Amino acid sequence: MHADHEHPHRPWPGLLAAYRRWLPVTDQTPALTLCEGNTPLIRSHRLSEQLHANVYFKYEGANPTGSFKDRGMVLAVAKAAEAGSQVVICASTGNTSASAAAYAARAGLKAVILIPDGYVAMGKLAQAMMYGAEVVAVRGNFDEALAIVRELAERLPVTVVNSVNPFRLEGQQTAAFEICDALGRAPDHLCIPVGNAGNISAYWKGFCAYHAAGIVGNLPRMQGFEAEGAAALVRGEPVDHPETFATAIRIGRPASWHLAVAAVQESNGGIRAVSDDEIRHAYKLIAREGVFAEPASAASVAGLLQLHAQGVLQPGETVVCVLTGNGLKDPDNAIQHSDRAPLVTEASTDAVQTALERWL
Amino acid sequence: MHADHEHPHRPWPGLLAAYRRWLPVTDQTPALTLCEGNTPLIRSHRLSEQLHANVYFKYEGANPTGSFKDRGMVLAVAKAAEAGSQVVICASTGNTSASAAAYAARAGLKAVILIPDGYVAMGKLAQAMMYGAEVVAVRGNFDEALAIVRELAERLPVTVVNSVNPFRLEGQQTAAFEICDALGRAPDHLCIPVGNAGNISAYWKGFCAYHAAGIVGNLPRMQGFEAEGAAALVRGEPVDHPETFATAIRIGRPASWHLAVAAVQESNGGIRAVSDDEIRHAYKLIAREGVFAEPASAASVAGLLQLHAQGVLQPGETVVCVLTGNGLKDPDNAIQHSDRAPLVTEASTDAVQTALERWL
Repeated sequence: MHADHEHPHRPWPGLLAAYRRWLPVTDQTPALTLCEGNTPLIRSHRLSEQLHANVYFKYEGANPTGSFKDRGMVLAVAKAAEAGSQVVICASTGNTSASAAAYAARAGLKAVILIPDGYVAMGKLAQAMMYGAEVVAVRGNFDEALAIVRELAERLPVTVVNSVNPFRLEGQQTAAFEICDALGRAPDHLCIPVGNAGNISAYWKGFCAYHAAGIVGNLPRMQGFEAEGAAALVRGEPVDHPETFATAIRIGRPASWHLAVAAVQESNGGIRAVSDDEIRHAYKLIAREGVFAEPASAASVAGLLQLHAQGVLQPGETVVCVLTGNGLKDPDNAIQHSDRAPLVTEASTDAVQTALERWL
Repeated sequence: MHADHEHPHRPWPGLLAAYRRWLPVTDQTPALTLCEGNTPLIRSHRLSEQLHANVYFKYEGANPTGSFKDRGMVLAVAKAAEAGSQVVICASTGNTSASAAAYAARAGLKAVILIPDGYVAMGKLAQAMMYGAEVVAVRGNFDEALAIVRELAERLPVTVVNSVNPFRLEGQQTAAFEICDALGRAPDHLCIPVGNAGNISAYWKGFCAYHAAGIVGNLPRMQGFEAEGAAALVRGEPVDHPETFATAIRIGRPASWHLAVAAVQESNGGIRAVSDDEIRHAYKLIAREGVFAEPASAASVAGLLQLHAQGVLQPGETVVCVLTGNGLKDPDNAIQHSDRAPLVTEASTDAVQTALERWL
């Protein structure tokens, strides 16, 4: 074999192995992995130029089940298996269920998933079913489904893998580690969608851990963005009937409310609301740079544009926008929100040429 | 900053940078990337045990647009931009169009996509539209669409980025490089779906390049698998009306026919047909290990099961099955082929508990 530089690709061992010293992993913890983490930090050339800043997308859609949830789920399911659990259960707007179903399948456990009937994107439902989970569609919203899960856990021998499971947030810290590993420092601002408010809390914990260990010398301002129709933290009270087309953050009673508020206060950041129109605009803008994220992910970029308009963003600052999930999770929204429709023609060169000439 | 081992995550620079010395990249080639490549090689614990072999999945669904096509497209679009082209064009069953649209968007070029009307999976169509491509749905099959693209390229100032563009196969070699980098050798068998027959040819070229350079000491047997209803190479003649639910390999006139036959002959491999039922079985089997691939991808695993049944696979051999695309590309097929449907209940703990007790 030649020297190392001849072998650019180094296999990634997964998060439990890569960040073992930062996680509650013991010799008894199963070596569970689907090669989660190690996701790309993609420079946004256009936003960097437009905002006079260094703007990056942390593309969490590259995770095994297509969302950031895999970071916490691999640890939560491994710890459930370590504890001898046979069944994991969660309520979910879709991404959590896909992830729970995949890691349960990998670990040989059963997964039971509660989803709000009619409000889960098609790709996510397809995943949970293919991975072999038992799916219960509850005639209610996410918050009601989560309340049921918590009650069931007191009655039945099941392990809850919603973010009330502390291993979830422990695992999700690793995204902050990766950003620091890639940049050699923490960014100035971390822009992130806020639904159940767990992820912003986990990132902050991760940045603080690296900072306390002296690995980075700075900390980011945590900038969280809720959908306007589900903006419980911004309003300061739960939203009983949350509404937004960005289903992944259609949550009116965020479980990690206090942690999120603390992260924002300690970091001199903020929680703001972005409208569905702002999310839609950002959703397309990201795709036109070649990155396809699900609608909720675009809340981070919609929020960045607000920060810029309000003068919060300073020239030359480094910003990471977290794109939480893959656009393929929600093909219906993509097709519905595209500006253009396919043009149908007969199968002849002349017919297609005529169609093309209007664009060329 | 601490020592290197404190920073497990090393940012991946993309294929043109990582494998520059193996690719026709010059100082004039734009540094185009969406962080493609660097995809996971996931050990299949269950197949390894069942077949007494070392079985891995090369999960190409982790690429930026969710399929292996990104490996060749990044090079083809970069070279088109280098040559001053403004427009790229291709015919596609979906994955090529998504990839062409994404890299064209990233590079600031226009993409024109011809798809067979009614035979492209929903996720792929959503991608091409969101990335901003001009999509023409042709009332014909893939082979007719490709013929039109080739004729148009002689009439109009457009660059064809189908696999007739030699840069596509050059770039696709990198998957073979990554497998060798990860294993420290070439596998004994490389199992791969065959549609247009370009990918099997590219892998073989890549393995041969690493072997010729002395980086690996062995070469794999190339085992290609066509869908039974589109098995042109197996039959030895084009299929005029190809049929399979695995739309990505629903191709009756493979463009890289002769290259594929050469790869198989030189490597002492084979081309076999797998039925839609065999593909469906493998599709579920992969998902039950936590890996969600599109139906066409499962042809490689369906084929591996054939090789085992026929005694071609020897105990202890190392096999890599290429999973060419992400399962999220085709949510309709996933939902349709799941064994179970979601159970709908009212939003009460008792109702859900009753539902659960039949599974626990």
